[in-house]
Amino acid sequence: MNNNNVVTKWDVFEIVLSGPANGNPYIEIDLSATISFKNRMIKVPGFYDGNGVYKIRFMPDTEGQWFVSTHSNCTELDNIETSFECVAARDGFHGPVKVNNKFHFCHADGKPYFPFGTTCYAWTHQPLGMQEQTLATLAKTRFNKIRMGVFPKHYIYSENEPLHKAFQVIDGAENFDYPNFEMFKHFENQVAALNEMHVEADVIIFHPYDRWDYCVMSAEQDFRYVKYLVARIGAYSNVWWSLANEYDFLLDVKPIAQWDRYFHIIEENDPYRHPKSIHNGEATMDFNHRKPWVDHVCIQNWDTKRTAEWREAWGKPIVNDEPEYEGNIPRPWGNITAQELVHRFWTTVMRGGYAGHGETFMHEKDLLWWAKGGELRGESWKRIGFLRDLLEADVKNGLTPIVPAQHWEYTRVSGAIDGDVRFIYFGEHQPVEWAVGLPMEDGDYEIDLIDTWNMTIKRIEKSPLPVSPALRQKGGAIMGGDPEAAFGVQLPGIPYMAIRIRKK
Amino acid sequence: MNNNNVVTKWDVFEIVLSGPANGNPYIEIDLSATISFKNRMIKVPGFYDGNGVYKIRFMPDTEGQWFVSTHSNCTELDNIETSFECVAARDGFHGPVKVNNKFHFCHADGKPYFPFGTTCYAWTHQPLGMQEQTLATLAKTRFNKIRMGVFPKHYIYSENEPLHKAFQVIDGAENFDYPNFEMFKHFENQVAALNEMHVEADVIIFHPYDRWDYCVMSAEQDFRYVKYLVARIGAYSNVWWSLANEYDFLLDVKPIAQWDRYFHIIEENDPYRHPKSIHNGEATMDFNHRKPWVDHVCIQNWDTKRTAEWREAWGKPIVNDEPEYEGNIPRPWGNITAQELVHRFWTTVMRGGYAGHGETFMHEKDLLWWAKGGELRGESWKRIGFLRDLLEADVKNGLTPIVPAQHWEYTRVSGAIDGDVRFIYFGEHQPVEWAVGLPMEDGDYEIDLIDTWNMTIKRIEKSPLPVSPALRQKGGAIMGGDPEAAFGVQLPGIPYMAIRIRKK
Repeated sequence: MNNNNVVTKWDVFEIVLSGPANGNPYIEIDLSATISFKNRMIKVPGFYDGNGVYKIRFMPDTEGQWFVSTHSNCTELDNIETSFECVAARDGFHGPVKVNNKFHFCHADGKPYFPFGTTCYAWTHQPLGMQEQTLATLAKTRFNKIRMGVFPKHYIYSENEPLHKAFQVIDGAENFDYPNFEMFKHFENQVAALNEMHVEADVIIFHPYDRWDYCVMSAEQDFRYVKYLVARIGAYSNVWWSLANEYDFLLDVKPIAQWDRYFHIIEENDPYRHPKSIHNGEATMDFNHRKPWVDHVCIQNWDTKRTAEWREAWGKPIVNDEPEYEGNIPRPWGNITAQELVHRFWTTVMRGGYAGHGETFMHEKDLLWWAKGGELRGESWKRIGFLRDLLEADVKNGLTPIVPAQHWEYTRVSGAIDGDVRFIYFGEHQPVEWAVGLPMEDGDYEIDLIDTWNMTIKRIEKSPLPVSPALRQKGGAIMGGDPEAAFGVQLPGIPYMAIRIRKK
Repeated sequence: MNNNNVVTKWDVFEIVLSGPANGNPYIEIDLSATISFKNRMIKVPGFYDGNGVYKIRFMPDTEGQWFVSTHSNCTELDNIETSFECVAARDGFHGPVKVNNKFHFCHADGKPYFPFGTTCYAWTHQPLGMQEQTLATLAKTRFNKIRMGVFPKHYIYSENEPLHKAFQVIDGAENFDYPNFEMFKHFENQVAALNEMHVEADVIIFHPYDRWDYCVMSAEQDFRYVKYLVARIGAYSNVWWSLANEYDFLLDVKPIAQWDRYFHIIEENDPYRHPKSIHNGEATMDFNHRKPWVDHVCIQNWDTKRTAEWREAWGKPIVNDEPEYEGNIPRPWGNITAQELVHRFWTTVMRGGYAGHGETFMHEKDLLWWAKGGELRGESWKRIGFLRDLLEADVKNGLTPIVPAQHWEYTRVSGAIDGDVRFIYFGEHQPVEWAVGLPMEDGDYEIDLIDTWNMTIKRIEKSPLPVSPALRQKGGAIMGGDPEAAFGVQLPGIPYMAIRIRKK
């Protein structure tokens, strides 16, 4: 037995145990631990790591002395006791992310977390040099989440051999009853590397883009793999569980009840309750994200002005991870302009949701960020970082769509509020003056004009109300005599502007 | 009695009769005619035009001798007989428009009619010089329909006094039982002027933007007014009946059953069956346009990629007359860029629908095209004309959305087909090569790259299929082995392009 006796909060405590190497421990050996702090007891799964090595990992959330006691159907591994001390978290580490304020997220210590993710489905399966490049690229961006598959991806522009197979080759074929420990070790090392960079790993457990038959394993093999994955990486603070990329393209082999079972297996084995979601391919509305085991709504949908509809439909955080990708490939989802993707980010965020980035520019060697990572070649990522900075500067609880008296107006223009700060994003709208959604109470406000593309911020002043409140007539009489705001603003009359209003 | 004895087909035959001027003939006198051609008999309403003058108008659709016999509860007007000869239509006149091929329109002679309309709600209520300017502006555009209210409009930027009141002032107040014949005469003269220019008059019968209480007349007054309007202007070939601008803002004074009754009154009095529609304010899906008396769907909705959904919902032509307006005013519906409006036109048309134009630029004298007509100041109208020209050059039956094997792709990119011509419109998508939606059969095609903003057309060549057909994998096997088209095209990788493919 080998363990580290002092662990910083939200980092990984690990016990390494020796046990049998014969037979198939992946299937035959049960291992878990009860980890306790005072009277609190937490059940934690262990896992087999090959060559007779067994491990139990745990992420403590409370400073102080913790006690560990193992359980196994193998006497060698059973009833082992140890303890460790949890000390204060490292500087800059805020713990795992959870849902907060119904539509938003925060870290365990309460620090708001605004997901600004990107997508590199198979980056951990590329040559190691390219993986380093991916991490270096991430380091210069402001992305704080990455969608990444456990399994490699077979698809156009992603046809190279993966670095490791996911299962061992036995008698000339991969055997889904024997995990390739090298692949899992490598995968979790990259999860850990992301954690050091404060990037959440949105781990995609299944997907249909497969020439290795991982997507047609038996239900039993699937369930075992899910439990194994959770046992291995659940103790990493930055893990999110994304059951699928495009679950609906796998429905003929994995019916809905089976997806629900994956959720339950995660719940049974993840004491940290990392965020869990499932991601659609075609019909956004077909999955019932109201199910209690779904923590947040992960969708792909280009029509980002519908974000508020989705909030209403499911009552959970909306993370639209594929509002199409910046790029120029001949697939309809992979070729919007940088301007359009930035626009869709702003539209989503300013309606109380979160969006995800991806980049698909043709490359002579098929090195597309969305599949393989490497280098970013587009222009949207800088503006997305700018938007994240704006949120982090002022937003505390998360943005809520502004619903002014004429709430229907917000199907057109986007606006959101949090406490003393509000934003209105105009997108393709180019008014020369504006009032809808501005504060109803006059007072001392700082108002800034934000150029979302050029990333400039310029102080502007209040102006007289630009339009009469008497906008509609009904029954022959003026409808609604209230002014639409306490003041107005003058604007430059060009598109893709936003304003920020802060109460002083 | 005074009548013209020879009438060109689809023009107005009119009988002018003298009768009582006392009492209130508008309410008290019934007048109609039976107009017959061989054994065919058509019931046509007459109307009172003030000063003891009564008129019956009729638009013949068949060349030859027609016979007229009047009916009235006033003996002076009853049982008057006359006849006229209908001769060939004037050159360039194709008769009234009707629905054709389920989702489209054509003229009476079968010539396709593709609505490319604009909106000047109150142009007939402006000073006469400005009305002349409106007609001169229309003449230089390619708009072939205009939305226009019978009643004046009271609204921001439209607060001036109308040229005529709609009803007579009696005892110091407008009396809705006494139409102001001058207004109606002027209105129909402008309908006739539009007809000379081959512009359809989409006549808005009711709307809520009103300081004269026209929108709160009694139901009986409404019904009488609708019948009177139909009797007066139904014989003009270019009339369309738009029951409302934004009917739903009047629901508290005019319930749905009352709107249905207006439709029925039109059906009872319009033997020509001019196109009838009703136009929503807020919730696009709330009106059941499947009702048999609704000929086409007139909506306002900014989300033009949903056009195919609306076609499916109602099975009728979709005319999205307010996909927001080009402009810069501080109302959310009136300030999109010219580029965006052109984009929405293309998106709509290339999904099998039709869109409408409007322009709302701030003006120091409040002269906004959308309310008053006058001059166009924007940039979209030229590109909209260019799109109309493209349709008229090649489309015969109307465009139908292309549904390729992966039909979901068309929620993203737009494409439509008619016989041997097809278009694919990329909008914010900027692929460098493309195949989805191109012909499945190889052959001799003319392919053109269309720059929708710069209005250029450039011949391009076929290229090898840009992507493998093996795009998705399901159940571990390649899904669908068919190629997505017979060939591909190379594209410039910039947004707002379209391609046209014509079979030689």
